[in-house]
Amino acid sequence: MNAIASIRESIDSADWRSMADKLFDELRVRTGDGRGITRECYAEGEQAALDLFRETAEAHGLKASYDKAANLLITLPDDDGKKPAIILGSHADSVPQGGNFDGGAGVVAGLLCLIRLLNERPSAPSPVRVLIMRGEESAYYGRANIGSRALFGLLLPTDLNAKRRGNGRTLREALQGAGADIGAIAEGAQLFANKLASAYLELHIEQGPVMVARELPTAIVTGIRGNLRHRRLVCRGEAGHSGTVPRWLRRDAVFAVSDLLMRLDEHWNRLLERGLDLVITIGVCGTDTERHAISRIPAEVYFSFEVRSQSYETLEGFYELFRSECRAVSDQRRVSFEFDERIYTEPAKMDETIIKRLQQYSERLKLPTELLASGAGHDAAVFAISGIPSGMIFVRNSNGSHNPDEAMTIDDFMCGVELMYAFAADGI
Amino acid sequence: MNAIASIRESIDSADWRSMADKLFDELRVRTGDGRGITRECYAEGEQAALDLFRETAEAHGLKASYDKAANLLITLPDDDGKKPAIILGSHADSVPQGGNFDGGAGVVAGLLCLIRLLNERPSAPSPVRVLIMRGEESAYYGRANIGSRALFGLLLPTDLNAKRRGNGRTLREALQGAGADIGAIAEGAQLFANKLASAYLELHIEQGPVMVARELPTAIVTGIRGNLRHRRLVCRGEAGHSGTVPRWLRRDAVFAVSDLLMRLDEHWNRLLERGLDLVITIGVCGTDTERHAISRIPAEVYFSFEVRSQSYETLEGFYELFRSECRAVSDQRRVSFEFDERIYTEPAKMDETIIKRLQQYSERLKLPTELLASGAGHDAAVFAISGIPSGMIFVRNSNGSHNPDEAMTIDDFMCGVELMYAFAADGI
Repeated sequence: MNAIASIRESIDSADWRSMADKLFDELRVRTGDGRGITRECYAEGEQAALDLFRETAEAHGLKASYDKAANLLITLPDDDGKKPAIILGSHADSVPQGGNFDGGAGVVAGLLCLIRLLNERPSAPSPVRVLIMRGEESAYYGRANIGSRALFGLLLPTDLNAKRRGNGRTLREALQGAGADIGAIAEGAQLFANKLASAYLELHIEQGPVMVARELPTAIVTGIRGNLRHRRLVCRGEAGHSGTVPRWLRRDAVFAVSDLLMRLDEHWNRLLERGLDLVITIGVCGTDTERHAISRIPAEVYFSFEVRSQSYETLEGFYELFRSECRAVSDQRRVSFEFDERIYTEPAKMDETIIKRLQQYSERLKLPTELLASGAGHDAAVFAISGIPSGMIFVRNSNGSHNPDEAMTIDDFMCGVELMYAFAADGI
Repeated sequence: MNAIASIRESIDSADWRSMADKLFDELRVRTGDGRGITRECYAEGEQAALDLFRETAEAHGLKASYDKAANLLITLPDDDGKKPAIILGSHADSVPQGGNFDGGAGVVAGLLCLIRLLNERPSAPSPVRVLIMRGEESAYYGRANIGSRALFGLLLPTDLNAKRRGNGRTLREALQGAGADIGAIAEGAQLFANKLASAYLELHIEQGPVMVARELPTAIVTGIRGNLRHRRLVCRGEAGHSGTVPRWLRRDAVFAVSDLLMRLDEHWNRLLERGLDLVITIGVCGTDTERHAISRIPAEVYFSFEVRSQSYETLEGFYELFRSECRAVSDQRRVSFEFDERIYTEPAKMDETIIKRLQQYSERLKLPTELLASGAGHDAAVFAISGIPSGMIFVRNSNGSHNPDEAMTIDDFMCGVELMYAFAADGI
């Protein structure tokens, strides 16, 4: 018996758990790379995943078609596409050597819900559609949410000219190769009719450790954090012999940056106590490897800066504190700070009504009603920013994502699917 | 007229300033590298400097010979070498692309004093000798004070097996090539008779900025700072997605190391207020370049650690504070610290009587009587640790050392020479 037939078999006993298991297994087999899974966007791996989803959908009597951005749309057989629908979305692609569930979980959840609706609620109040997007991960072209941004005319010419790491293929060529309407995309045309989507709902594994730590199988997402970043800041002091320059004559860049970070750490702590949503990361930092030495006062430290929050006001407020502490440290430690371009990514709020409904269903299903911010980006942010009421369900997962060690249990996943199904079946 | 004859000419008018000028110029010409000067130890550049010093000495009626460690000894013509002498010492070598005065100033000062003594005080109370050492800089073999340590049996087998950066020649081969008694050196034999040295005096440019800042043409050195070092410490936390891991679940190595440094900074400040001699340097630090990213919580920071002081107790005391703060930060920020070998270099105290005499001469010559610690190492430390009463005169110098931009004025230099001459002429 082939894989699709085996997945199809689960429906006779309405054994959705077993169907999910089999779908995840087959997805892992088709896109495995020996260590984890690899589903390169607009390339073989992603296409293999989409083919599996399409075959599964069609084997269960659903319809499948590609939209103008080459994303895969799955609909109920009697859906004429003219009424506003609930969109259950997620993405088919992955980072290289990624895990099976980042993106995959949301697609499988959507498919299960649609198959179950067809079988249990042939006349649900609203149409429900599953949208399986391409190119959500930035790993290949340095651009995230390509498939969803293409739908809303949000890909810029610089995005389309971005080249794939390694082989130099442009994103424009990649989209074209996948059958997307590159002319319309390049013009920034709106390819998605907002009026045909009453809500967008995405299930995703949590990519952080909060739900494991707090023992939550599911959680409801309040918003997707935006961020303010600098890729490379430089603190400049003055080099000197470590033995011969006394403290009062030093302009030590390492002590200056440490001082700055401890000031930021204290602000961070206080703002959290006031209930603000905030994370700060200095992911990259170091002395100048060409010139540093154990017995040389460091003249230069480069470092990255990132602040994330669901709130634009918090981002801007913290950024102001950051710049003002740079000024204070410059004065007190006689160093200077050099700033590169500030990069801004907008935060996205999930819809209040959808959040409340998800909490009600959670209560009914005896699932936690806890709210959580999403630190990582998602296609849901693109839908929310584009004016479509959006929501997200997080499922507990260990070991983060973007690695083969992602660990979501099927039990937790099925809790998330139940919650999604309750929402989809009720209509909007 | 050749260079030596021109230097010789200055003696007729007892124009020591002009003699110094000419000697420095010729030294720069013979060992210039286009950008600065290079006098590689046990190689061409150092030998060229030694040849100039020998020619100059002999042209002025002094005697020159190499000792068993291949250092150059200059003596008065009637010195039979049997009476204890005042040794005026410094070194002939330099770092690659170094400055003309680091080492060179001390040698020229010694030579000027000896020539002047021969002419003005043929029957000075004690013999005076000039000892021009090789291999003081660690730039080539990673070992400092080679020439002086060889004299006191202080070179270990690991030192002799050290290889020159680049060409792999061992220090053993280098010493042998220069004519040193490698058998005796390898056995750790004492090649210098302590009883034949009543005092060791070295003039050197200051390698820090203190004398420029405090407007001191000369200063008297109290001691040479020792140090405690770690070449590479590692702080280990846990990596994570910068957006998805909240503050309470982070184990951020960059914030942990910053916290540690600000704790050390506060201790440093307090200990200085209590009058202790102390400098602390983290010359090298950075996140793991293979794995760091703007949006990744840094799991690892490597850093060097160095504390310098003239006092053994201060070094050990501060080191204890350092280790205890590492423990506190480990607990509070859930990171760990990994320690490599601790490297200890002994501090050396200059002789109290010599310091007092130098202060008296300074007063008489209307020079500052200010005391200063030497942060950099010097051959004087080896003599002091080996039991010979030692002293050092610092001469003001801008832009530090170990670079072509060293800037000592001949006016300041001549102040230092006057002070050295007063000491040498008085005997001990």
